[in-house]
This record gives sequence, C-alpha cells and structure tokens, in this order.
Amino acid sequence: MKRPLIMTPGPTSIHEEVRRSLSEQITNPDLDMHFFDFYKETCSKLQRVLKTDNDVLILNGEGILGLEAACASLIEPGDRVLCIDNGIFGNGFGDFARMYGAEVVYFKSDYRKAVNVLALEKFLDNDNAFTVATLVHCETPSGITNSVEQICQLLNKFGIISVVDSVSGIGGEPIETDKWKMDIVLGGSQKCLSAPPGLTFLSISEKAWKKILNRRLPIAGYYVNLSIWKDWYQNREFPYTQPINDIFGFHTAIERWLSDENPLLRHKVIGEAARKSLIEAGLELFPLEGFSNTVTTINIPENTKFKDVFNSMLEDHNILIAGAFGFLKDKVIRIGHMGENCYEDRLYVALKALDNVFRKNNVKLNVELHKAFISKL
Amino acid sequence: MKRPLIMTPGPTSIHEEVRRSLSEQITNPDLDMHFFDFYKETCSKLQRVLKTDNDVLILNGEGILGLEAACASLIEPGDRVLCIDNGIFGNGFGDFARMYGAEVVYFKSDYRKAVNVLALEKFLDNDNAFTVATLVHCETPSGITNSVEQICQLLNKFGIISVVDSVSGIGGEPIETDKWKMDIVLGGSQKCLSAPPGLTFLSISEKAWKKILNRRLPIAGYYVNLSIWKDWYQNREFPYTQPINDIFGFHTAIERWLSDENPLLRHKVIGEAARKSLIEAGLELFPLEGFSNTVTTINIPENTKFKDVFNSMLEDHNILIAGAFGFLKDKVIRIGHMGENCYEDRLYVALKALDNVFRKNNVKLNVELHKAFISKL
Amino acid sequence: MKRPLIMTPGPTSIHEEVRRSLSEQITNPDLDMHFFDFYKETCSKLQRVLKTDNDVLILNGEGILGLEAACASLIEPGDRVLCIDNGIFGNGFGDFARMYGAEVVYFKSDYRKAVNVLALEKFLDNDNAFTVATLVHCETPSGITNSVEQICQLLNKFGIISVVDSVSGIGGEPIETDKWKMDIVLGGSQKCLSAPPGLTFLSISEKAWKKILNRRLPIAGYYVNLSIWKDWYQNREFPYTQPINDIFGFHTAIERWLSDENPLLRHKVIGEAARKSLIEAGLELFPLEGFSNTVTTINIPENTKFKDVFNSMLEDHNILIAGAFGFLKDKVIRIGHMGENCYEDRLYVALKALDNVFRKNNVKLNVELHKAFISKL
Amino acid sequence: MKRPLIMTPGPTSIHEEVRRSLSEQITNPDLDMHFFDFYKETCSKLQRVLKTDNDVLILNGEGILGLEAACASLIEPGDRVLCIDNGIFGNGFGDFARMYGAEVVYFKSDYRKAVNVLALEKFLDNDNAFTVATLVHCETPSGITNSVEQICQLLNKFGIISVVDSVSGIGGEPIETDKWKMDIVLGGSQKCLSAPPGLTFLSISEKAWKKILNRRLPIAGYYVNLSIWKDWYQNREFPYTQPINDIFGFHTAIERWLSDENPLLRHKVIGEAARKSLIEAGLELFPLEGFSNTVTTINIPENTKFKDVFNSMLEDHNILIAGAFGFLKDKVIRIGHMGENCYEDRLYVALKALDNVFRKNNVKLNVELHKAFISKL
Repeated sequence: MKRPLIMTPGPTSIHEEVRRSLSEQITNPDLDMHFFDFYKETCSKLQRVLKTDNDVLILNGEGILGLEAACASLIEPGDRVLCIDNGIFGNGFGDFARMYGAEVVYFKSDYRKAVNVLALEKFLDNDNAFTVATLVHCETPSGITNSVEQICQLLNKFGIISVVDSVSGIGGEPIETDKWKMDIVLGGSQKCLSAPPGLTFLSISEKAWKKILNRRLPIAGYYVNLSIWKDWYQNREFPYTQPINDIFGFHTAIERWLSDENPLLRHKVIGEAARKSLIEAGLELFPLEGFSNTVTTINIPENTKFKDVFNSMLEDHNILIAGAFGFLKDKVIRIGHMGENCYEDRLYVALKALDNVFRKNNVKLNVELHKAFISKL
Repeated sequence: MKRPLIMTPGPTSIHEEVRRSLSEQITNPDLDMHFFDFYKETCSKLQRVLKTDNDVLILNGEGILGLEAACASLIEPGDRVLCIDNGIFGNGFGDFARMYGAEVVYFKSDYRKAVNVLALEKFLDNDNAFTVATLVHCETPSGITNSVEQICQLLNKFGIISVVDSVSGIGGEPIETDKWKMDIVLGGSQKCLSAPPGLTFLSISEKAWKKILNRRLPIAGYYVNLSIWKDWYQNREFPYTQPINDIFGFHTAIERWLSDENPLLRHKVIGEAARKSLIEAGLELFPLEGFSNTVTTINIPENTKFKDVFNSMLEDHNILIAGAFGFLKDKVIRIGHMGENCYEDRLYVALKALDNVFRKNNVKLNVELHKAFISKL
Repeated sequence: MKRPLIMTPGPTSIHEEVRRSLSEQITNPDLDMHFFDFYKETCSKLQRVLKTDNDVLILNGEGILGLEAACASLIEPGDRVLCIDNGIFGNGFGDFARMYGAEVVYFKSDYRKAVNVLALEKFLDNDNAFTVATLVHCETPSGITNSVEQICQLLNKFGIISVVDSVSGIGGEPIETDKWKMDIVLGGSQKCLSAPPGLTFLSISEKAWKKILNRRLPIAGYYVNLSIWKDWYQNREFPYTQPINDIFGFHTAIERWLSDENPLLRHKVIGEAARKSLIEAGLELFPLEGFSNTVTTINIPENTKFKDVFNSMLEDHNILIAGAFGFLKDKVIRIGHMGENCYEDRLYVALKALDNVFRKNNVKLNVELHKAFISKL
Repeated sequence: MKRPLIMTPGPTSIHEEVRRSLSEQITNPDLDMHFFDFYKETCSKLQRVLKTDNDVLILNGEGILGLEAACASLIEPGDRVLCIDNGIFGNGFGDFARMYGAEVVYFKSDYRKAVNVLALEKFLDNDNAFTVATLVHCETPSGITNSVEQICQLLNKFGIISVVDSVSGIGGEPIETDKWKMDIVLGGSQKCLSAPPGLTFLSISEKAWKKILNRRLPIAGYYVNLSIWKDWYQNREFPYTQPINDIFGFHTAIERWLSDENPLLRHKVIGEAARKSLIEAGLELFPLEGFSNTVTTINIPENTKFKDVFNSMLEDHNILIAGAFGFLKDKVIRIGHMGENCYEDRLYVALKALDNVFRKNNVKLNVELHKAFISKL
C-alpha cells in the first residue's frame, strides 16, 4: 500500500515516535504489575488533557464504543434523554440512547450553525425532566464546534447528566471538563491526539458514576459496561486483556501533546488561516458560524464533482481528503487539520494541491489558496 | 517497564517482524480503497488458518468481544441455548447467552477431562431442542482441549448452531471449520498467532448468518452487532474506523504462521515434551486427560505457594508464568507454549528456571525439568 | 539529544524507510553468499545514479576516505598532478595528492565563480604533462558547481585521468560519468542521497584501473588501497568485513532516489527559488556565478554575526544551518537543500525561520523570504 | 535475504535495542554540540569496558582500520618492531608494521598454543631494542587467547610500546588496560560488543601519544592518522563527519554490555561448556591450550568436508558457522560464542544442529553435543 498524506478529519498522520512505541516488546498486561501503573499513568495524562479529576478509562475499541458504552451504562429503559442535535453525529447520538431504552427528545438547532444556546435555555426552562443529555462537541461531518462550555453548565444547572462526544474536539478545541461541569467526555485515539485508531476513552464524573452504579436494571452488555471497570486499579484486574501495544503508542502520543507548547493555539491559528484563505478565494464554507478548528468543510463548487476533486488530489498529489455522508454526501469537501497534520507546512502542501486541482476542474479562485493561507498566519 | 519473557497462555512474545508492521505509516482506512482489499486479504488468510470458506470478520476488541458479538447477534430472547461446560470459560459462556435472553441449559462434564462426547450424545438424543450451543475448544484456565471435531459434527446432526471459543486453540490445535461443521469459530490475536492483543475474529457459516439476518427482534447493541458487517466489502464501508496498525501487525503474524512449516506439529511436540518432563519430575498435571498443546497446567506442589513461585520466576529469572482464577486460584501454575513461545529454546530456558525455583522452594523433583524436556524432543 | 531540522549541506534528514532498513537483522557479510549479491546490486544502482558502466565500489568510511583512496591508489611518487582549484575543497585536494608523492601544479580560478574552462583550456594547451587531475564538482563551502562536463572531457582530450570529488553533487547535480569521460567520481552517503554518514563510493574507469594496477611502487596503505578490491565479487571475498547495516540503509536510500520522478529537476527548481528569494530580499550570495543547486551560501549581512544567526535558528526554531570554515569562517551562512531536505515545505519552514531571525537581528529585508520563495516555484 | 542465526566469530546477532538506536533520527554531528558530548560519553563507556583512563577514539571503519591507524601513526621508517606471532593474525600484524617502514623482527610461538611467555622473556632478555611490539589478544582464526596480562607487562618493563589487537577479545575476555600496561588496545564494534560492523576503536596511552606526536617524519596518510584527533573535543571539531547512526547503535550496545551482570563470566562458562561437550563427543579442538572463550575451533573430523558441514548447517538448520583461511582453510570449523550469541539457548540450538549434521555426515559422536553442553553448565 502506497501511503498518501492523510489530510482527513481523522485518522491523522502518526508521528514516528508514536509508531516506535507501538512496536516495543510487550509484557503480559494481565499479570505484570508495572503495566497497571503504566495504564493508570496514561489515564492521568488524559486527565491533564481533559482538565479533570474525574476517572478516565481507556477502552479497547473505536470511538463509537465509548459513545455506546456511555449510553449503555447510564441509560435505563424509560429514561428521558435529551438529544441536542445540530448535525449528523448529534442526531445519531439519539439512536444509541434509544437502543438502550431511552425516551429520546430532540432539541434541534440549525445544521449550519453552532447550537443556539439561548434557544436551548428557553427550551430547558420549559422542559427539563431529563436524566441525561447527549451532545457533540465538534460535529465532524459539518465542521462545527458547539459551545460545550455554555451547554454543559446549563445542563448541570438543571441536574441533567451531560454526555459529550468530543472525539474530534479533544486536543484541538479547548475543553475544561471540571470547570464546565461535563459529566462524561468521550474521545478517540486517532483524531487530534494522533495515535492509531483503535482506542476510545472517557472521563466519568461522580454524578455519572452514581447513576451507573445505582441502576435498577443490569446493563445490557459486557463490553459496553463501564461498571465492570470500577475498581480495576485497586484490584489489579482488567475486565479483559488490554491492547498493550496500542496503549504504548497512545501514551507517547499524549505525552507529545502535553509537551507541545500550545497545541490549542496552534489549531486555532491554522484553522482560522485555512478558513480565511478558502473564503478569500471565493469558496463557500458549509458552516455559517461555529467553525471548527480541527476540520474545515467547504461546499463543492458549482459544476464540480466531489469524486473528481478527491481522485485528483489522490492520484496527482498523493493526498487524501474527505467528503462526508448522509445529507452532505457529495456536497462537501472536508480537510482535517488535526494533531500531527495541524502544521503550516502540511496545510501549505495540501492547499497548494487543492488550488491546482480546483483550477484543473475549472473552479475560479480569486487568490492562490496556499499563498493566501500563509499570508494569514 | 523491564520486559520479562512471557511464558503465559497469551499474550505471547510478538515477533519483531510483526511489531515492525505495527509501526508502519498508515493511510485512512475509511477512505483508501487499498485498505479494504488489505483487510479482506487478512480475512482470507484467516480462512486458511481456520480451513474454511465461511466469512471471516476481524473486530476491534479483545477476544471477549467476539464471544459477546456472537451471542448478541445469534441469540434472541427465549432461545434455548446449550452450554457445554467442562471448565471456567465453558461455564461463563452461558452467562453471555443469558445476558442476551437465552434460556440456558448446561451440559456439565468433568472439569479435569475433555468433554465426554458419548455422554453428550446421549444427552442430545434426549433433548436437542436448542437453536445454539456454546463450547470452548481449549479451556485456557485448566489446559484442556475438547474434541471440537466430534462435538460440532454432533451438534450439526441435530441442527444446532455451534459457537466455538477457540481463542487459545486456533493456531496451536488442529481446526477444520468446514469439515467439522463449526458454525461460529472465535479467536483472538494474542494467543497462538502471536499478534498484539486487541483484535478478535470470527468465522460465520451460512447457517449462522441466516439466523442473524432473520431475527424477529433487533440486536441489542451496535458494537456487538455482526449484521452491520454484512456487506462491508461490496459497499466499501466499515461499521467504524478500523484499527489499521493492529491489522498491519496481525496480517504479518498470520503470514508468519502460514509460512511456518508445520506449526500444529510444533505445538504438539513441544506440548507433549513439556508434559512428559513435568510428570517425570513427579509433578501433577491438573487435567487427567484432554491435554492442551498450547498451555500446560500443573497443580501447585504441596507446601508451596503460587505467589512464591510466580515471584521467584519473575525476580530471579525475569520470566512471567501464570496462575489461574476462579476455583483454580492459587491452585495451579500455567505455562504457555503458544505461537512464538512454542520453541524448544524458550521452553528450555523456562523449565530450567522453574526447576531452579522449585528446588529453592523445597519441591522434590525426580529429574531436572529442562534436561528431561530436551530428552523428550 | 533533541533532534533539530538539519538544513545543512549534509548530513541531511534521513527518511524513515532508510532508517528502518538500517535496523534490519543482519547476516554474516563475509560468509553469506546472498550478501555479495546484495552489495553488488547496490553498486549497480549507483551505476545508474552516476550513469556509468564503470566499476563502482562502496568503502566503509567517510567521503574523505574515497578521496584519499583515489589519490593513494592512483598517484605514484613523482607523478605530476594538476589540481584545479576554485575553492577550499579543490585546493585541499592538492594536499592529498602531495601526501602520496605527487608534484602538484595548481590551476587557480576565481573562488567566487565556477572554474573558468576557457582559461583552463589555454593553460592545458601550454602544459598538459599530467598523469592525473583533481577537481571538485560542487564546492560545498562556497556553494559553487563546476562544469565537470566540460572539464573532464577537456582533461580526457589530453589523456589526463580525472578524479572528481562530487560528494555534494551526486544526486543533486547532473552527472554523466561515461559520456563526460570522468575517470574517478567520488561520493558520500550522507549528501543528496540522504543515507547516514559513514560510506563513501567511487566509480573507476578502465583507464584509472590500468594505472592503479600497473604501478611501479606498491600502494602506501591498505585501507586506502583500491587494488585489493579488484576481484571481490568473483572471489566472493571482501577486503574487510562490510558494514552491512549501513549498506542496507544506503541501498534503500538509492532506491528512493531512483524511484523519484525527477530528483535533479527538483534540486534545480528548489535551488533557484531559494537563491532568487534571498536576492530579492536584498541579501548577497557568496558566489557570483556557478550557483550550486544543493547548497546556497550567503554573505553574512553587515552588523550581523554568524553565531547569533546560527544560535537563534537553533534555539528559537530548532533548525540547524551551517557556516563555513577557512577564509569563509564567520563570513557566510550555508543552507543545504539536498536530498530529503530539498522539498518546498522544508525550505518554506527554514526560510520563514531565517526571515524571523534576520529581522530580530536588525537585518533589513525587502521581502519576506518564505513568501518570496514560494512565489518562485 | 533470509536471515540465518549467525554463530560465527563476528559479526554476531545484534540486539533489537541496538538496531532501534541505529534507526533514530539524526542531527548534524559536525554542528550540533550535543553530539560531541554524546560521542565523548560513548568513549567514556568504552574506557569502562577496557578499564582504562587512556584516551579512547572511535574511528569510522572496520577493525583493520584501527590496526593500520596504530601502525601508521606509531611507526616511523626504520623503527625496529617486534611482531609476536602465534597465529595468522599475529603474523599479519607484521605486514602492517612493515608497510609503514618498520624493520620487523618476529617472535614465533607454537600456532596451537598461547604465546610462550617464558620463551618471550628469554628472547627479550637477549634483544629488546624495539620501539613497538605488536600482538593479538585473541587469535580469531585458531581460537587461542594469549596472556596479554603477562606479555604487556613484560614489554613495558623493557620500555616497548605494546599494540594489542583485541578485536575478538574485548567484551569476552578479561582486559585491564591500565593495570596490565597496555599502550594501544584495538577493538571492533561487531564482535563481543555485538554492534553492527563498521566501527573500530582504540585506547592510546600517554607513552603512545608521545611517540605519535613527536615523530621526525609526518604520518603517511590522513584517514589512518591518529594525531589529527588529538584535540577533537576541546576544539569541537572532528577530522571528518562522524557516522552518527553507527555511534548511536554502538552506544546502546556498550550500555547493554555494561549493564549486564557479568558478561566475562558468561563467556567463560559458555566457552568452557562448549569445549567440554565437543571433546566429550570425541571431537578434536585445534588449540592444544590457551582456549578462547569467544570462539571455539575444532578440526574437521576425518572423512568429512568443511563445505558439507557448512552447507548442511545453513540449508537444513538456517545457522551460519565459519571455517577459517590461510593454512586453516577447510581444516577447521569455528563456532562463535560472542556477545549476544553467548547464551545457553543459542549454543543449545547450534550444537543440536551440529550434532545432527555431523551424524548425517557419518561422524561418530560419543555423546549428543547439545545434551553434553547443557550438562556442563
């Protein structure tokens, strides 16, 4: 397999240091006491990323497993769950809640904007009898970041447990789990932390643990059951054999993030420069506001086909970009600027290629994308 | 972390080639068409290991996920499920079936012997109204291998779908999925195939697919739902982002197994020599018959404590061995001879250390373990 | 050791693929017949780089070893040797010739220009009683490339054996060993081929071999004696144990070069853009003509100190650039754009940093270096 | 290239940790001040291996370069040099001395025994007008270790500078450079220290430096000239660009040796057990006394051909063993037990294969080699 430059909204390029860690010799993670400490230390580092004292767990599965585990463990049949929905991922969250028996109520907000917090507040003033609310920090398909700061504090005011999918937010967008009263925050290894895909992690507040551990009915599943993790460290026993090489790699990836000078500022600067250059060139962003700093979504220019742009980027420039799915299928192009890909030389290369591909596809551009980009930095 | 020699029944040592594959640069597994073919090719290689034309899937999770996914996808509330039980793992299988609504009936067989097939046949002649039966190929905690050859053909005769946990069997014990009419066979990456822990895989017969796809009720979960994989290749769409580095490593590990001259014979020869040397020294195996060729379980000699043997092996010789759990906790020592650890020099080193540790713990041995071992090869 | 971006005129960054090859398990290079073929194949690939059918040897030592070996093996006490000298390296070549007994005659040419071929021709018309002539393809300290095409053909016309140091030329500047009648061409692993430092190689024409093998006096040394290599392949015997890991890495590096679309054009485009941007900014190149495409040398701007620029590049930007030595010490800055470092994103990053450092050191620049650079591509 | 197990007297297997160090990203070793300290620290570690406070240098070349550099730098035309000769390497040392102008006098000693120190003493009582003496610590072709302890102290008594080739001794045989008054001790990276081939190193006493720096005539060569290294650290200037990746690997290899519990005892125990088992089987060692602990040389049994044993070991068992050259060509088999290959499991595997190959070649053996071997441990 020839390896392209993957400027997609995750997985991202993985730094060689991280890949070297992946390839270290292993011990038996069930029997070697050192590994329990290593795993715990990895969780502690994630606490620093998430700014939280809450428990953090790393599960052996893709991001969707974290999301499902949160729903499965928290929600009991009959629970009223508020699904805050301003995009494909936000909406889909409701399906997982319903799968575990929730009565789901949707708060809908414009799909091209960040969640309207004032409207949400008004909505909650009217109806707040929810045990749990689900929301998405960064709507990866549309490139919109929601104000989890305001929303989670609002939910907290009403005593509602917040479950936040921040898979493509963590590491690229500010997050203050404890200060913002976020109950469950979920992430994946392969986005802004730039580890390989395969791990998901979540922080769990005391309030969330209380609900999980005081259910009337058992949790419907083992692999999605968070309660089996409750005392793993005290007991030195994992619910299943841990993917030790993946943990090695993830540990190094988190260390890289933590030792980086200011990764959040970097994402902000690069994200803004990318957007401004695209706009200046005359292209249209899909979001009208609430722009994500980790992924930029632009509408496919008229008379252009996504497939042509995608293929030309790959074949002529060896760069992978993404489209989207659902109602956005074939309508948008997405460029990831996450983690290891969020550097100016990477974007320079990607935007120069995109400039070239657009022109070949007869898209009129007011400026050269890559030059506009570097002039905004 | 100092890395010991891990002579445990999985995870095993991982060959450097496999670890190098883990550390290769990645592409985006959701968007790069080459990866779909690579994943498929990996599954094809597993078909060769399992001797089957059935579909094979690799899931992003530990072995227990494969087991749960099989139960969750196959079993509907009310299904009568036969749990063939001659050990801790066999018995626990019933819990998973019950979790997904099964009415579980246990066929119990002596925990120190392979499943009594004649007794099972008699049992089934009497009562065979089961949709599904669960069984374990190799009971890892006790070191017993069951005759899946006879049992699965028997179950098939009665139209019962067999679900076989062969996590510690595949790659070390003979398996003929199609010939022996095994409906679902599950494995893990970290046992006799000597890849890192983190992946589980299963082969699924037409009969099993039919039941999965013609349920009355939906499957209670997403991550454990096998039906969402049905047309992944035709649609070039995975249910979630695949753990591409793990798949790289697993691919290489399977290739190594396939290009090995006769790995099954190697496991047989090493397993037999290990058992014979331990017996000749005067030690007692836990199993009375049905000895596994991938893990050997011996009873802790009188006046000896597991913890002392374990610690001394680790501290004085830097070798990790295993005990067991459940009713075997502190009663047995387990030595894995799986995959990359199933070579005479590895066993020589481990048995020499064990000989030394036993003597220091005042265990009388009739022969020197390592010398007895090499004389049996 | 923290690793900086090394934008120096060699060693260059080494691609991960090359470093992975370095780390492969080895065989015994003296006894394993496969290695003789591997080494030979590596030489054949170098023949393709050098465009020659002449023998190519790889020696276990730095570039200077190749140069010394050529002098030691070719030159006999009393030989009249012409030293073509338009720079520090060209001049130093004469010292090596003299060390091995030559009566050295210098042809001096302006140190800020390529060798004046017309003047050389006139010189030779007058006096051409030389057995050997030494010259440098690319004067690394000053950043000047000489026309080996014209010079070697001229020398050949007079029957003079040419010995060309192309250490920093090969792989970055055009070279046509056979067509241009170059007798001995020497290179090093760590320049435009971007392998680790530690190997030198040379191509040897029939005419050169004849002189080496028909000396009156023995060669004064073993490690520098090329004649001991004469039939290494036929005899399957190396003069000493070969540095097999280095050869593994070098092999991969050469393969990368050969499979690159047009590395010479890449060096030309990047080299030109770098020079033009520096000039447009108001800086002064050291060379007046004969600009190298692999290294650019600029005069230190007035009121600026090399050490300040060097330190600031390293400390504030983690980029290593070079100064020079001899009469150029503290007078110039050198930026390498060789091999793996000869890509626009690398130069973009380096020139942006340099722009910043110059401004901090009160150097007035007419344009922004990095922006000027990308506008020239 | 398929990689065999290389049980040859160097190069040896290289530990994965060492190979990983080889593959690290580099800095510019000429310009990065950290590298000067790293190189120096590597030399300091070698001082600990050699038990010396003398300067240690690492040169970019094979072992033979160290030997030649010592001769070239020390010896002036007309110097009387004593060549202590009890083997092929000892004898050849004289050729290097002569190449640099020495009048060489040979002290011959039985080629199947260690140097006769009493005879040497008597010889020196008679004639001791030598500036320099050359000797070999471990005669790799014959597997004989000389008493450098006695010889160097004896030479010192007569004021003669000793130059000791300990390429296959260092790391496997005791060495006390300062206590035993060894003036120059030379080694190679690829023997008992188990780094890749490509580096040589030497320790240089004050007495040796004095001679080198106070010559009447210049040293005839640059690459072999030790005097150019005199103040490399103070000046932060290497005579040529250092092979940084090789130094990385060597550093790790030396660290492994230093952190090993008792590598010299390990070589002694393994060496003795190997010899005893071969003798017990009825085979004949080439040496009559002075057995090396790093390589064992046995005479080819009657009616057997070296080529057959060599080929069968390689083809049937994937193990490389060595023969020898010169007068030993086709007469002996050599098995290395050096560095990473000096472990009982390695010898067990090699001797089991050799047992099998000998029997297939109709060599009568009194015992099974591998079983005899482990019974001697």
